[in-house]
Amino acid sequence: MRCNLLGMKFKAIVLDIDGTITHKDRRLNLRAAETLRTLNIPVVLATGNISCYAMAAAKLIGLNGYVIAENGGLVFTGYYKPPIVSNNIEECEKAFTFLSQHYKLTKLDPEYRKTEIALSRDFDMKEAKGLLKSQDFEVEIIDTKYAIHIKSNKINKGTGLRNIAKIMGLTPADFVAIGDSVNDAEMIQFAGFGIAVANGDAEAKKAADYVTKASFGDGAVEAIEYVRSKGCI
Amino acid sequence: MRCNLLGMKFKAIVLDIDGTITHKDRRLNLRAAETLRTLNIPVVLATGNISCYAMAAAKLIGLNGYVIAENGGLVFTGYYKPPIVSNNIEECEKAFTFLSQHYKLTKLDPEYRKTEIALSRDFDMKEAKGLLKSQDFEVEIIDTKYAIHIKSNKINKGTGLRNIAKIMGLTPADFVAIGDSVNDAEMIQFAGFGIAVANGDAEAKKAADYVTKASFGDGAVEAIEYVRSKGCI
Repeated sequence: MRCNLLGMKFKAIVLDIDGTITHKDRRLNLRAAETLRTLNIPVVLATGNISCYAMAAAKLIGLNGYVIAENGGLVFTGYYKPPIVSNNIEECEKAFTFLSQHYKLTKLDPEYRKTEIALSRDFDMKEAKGLLKSQDFEVEIIDTKYAIHIKSNKINKGTGLRNIAKIMGLTPADFVAIGDSVNDAEMIQFAGFGIAVANGDAEAKKAADYVTKASFGDGAVEAIEYVRSKGCI
Repeated sequence: MRCNLLGMKFKAIVLDIDGTITHKDRRLNLRAAETLRTLNIPVVLATGNISCYAMAAAKLIGLNGYVIAENGGLVFTGYYKPPIVSNNIEECEKAFTFLSQHYKLTKLDPEYRKTEIALSRDFDMKEAKGLLKSQDFEVEIIDTKYAIHIKSNKINKGTGLRNIAKIMGLTPADFVAIGDSVNDAEMIQFAGFGIAVANGDAEAKKAADYVTKASFGDGAVEAIEYVRSKGCI
């Protein structure tokens, strides 16, 4: 593992919430919460969900309010601190209007969501992807298993990691990243060491340096214990 | 205890979040979360905090989205269900404008808060209370230790409990209530059996049928185990 070759340690951890430190049904994995509380390096939560969900999770787990929300659209370095906003929602709205001509789409948390659009998973996304290809919106449409997101194709958790690392005086290479979904792939790839949990989808696992044997929150616990056992955190 | 005298059991539990199922620093008490997961009756979270914080807590603990938020101003009976809104924020805004002539007040989560105003605890609330007495705003100002709230004097977690009980086909007497703060007093009083945790303030303890020996989340665990040991849930 890199950190041992160079004799350095990773300086922070960034991890996804739903599917990574939860159970399949999105209940917090309490062992994962307990493990995160034992870390003495900053822990960043990175989610496709809205910022107040991520901030609540950070507060309840007992973290410092380092949050990447809305798939990188919003980056916070503490509670009640103003976020860095990467806002391309106008482009997302154009794509939403276009797709609404073909499907009955239901927005999730529209009043809370600032930089992208999340939709109920009740339409044919693969077909919708094809329809979008015929247009030139600068967006991508992804399924995180919890929602379908229309997001800027320039913003993702990886760009969010770059932004928050810079503010923290670090680089993405200083981070261990743990995730499970297609929207975690760039973050896992940009990090110094990227881990996918066993339930992760192909894109997350392909980007990862290491894939856990255990799934969901138990996988995150295994991931942190693995990096710790190598003396890398 | 009532439930045994009548040979009935309580049908639901309503409890506060911060200070009641958390540690002092607002980290979720993991034993409390574990204990709540063992209950086979509905669990309602009742908080002075905003609804998306309460919903995130419900999701992460693994509850059904029964939530009383903003000190009774908002009542939800499930995720993504529209709330019952008891909205008196205009009256709160009048009181805020009046108090702003005397203090530098900082609103908390103003963009998320729909029915009341929460303020940083950085001004003399006792004095402010006195100033408000000279006015005829239909509001009260309370300190929950986490924020100072300007709220309607007609709305509280007790009225929220009445509202949610009705929708659930229950009455407040069917509930066990657990809390710690002045804003939990009415809920503790209206419930069939009211419990204050040891760290609770005088108003909460005065309203309670039972006060735990343990504080914060450990107190909530003790409270639930006590009611269970009596065969009341």
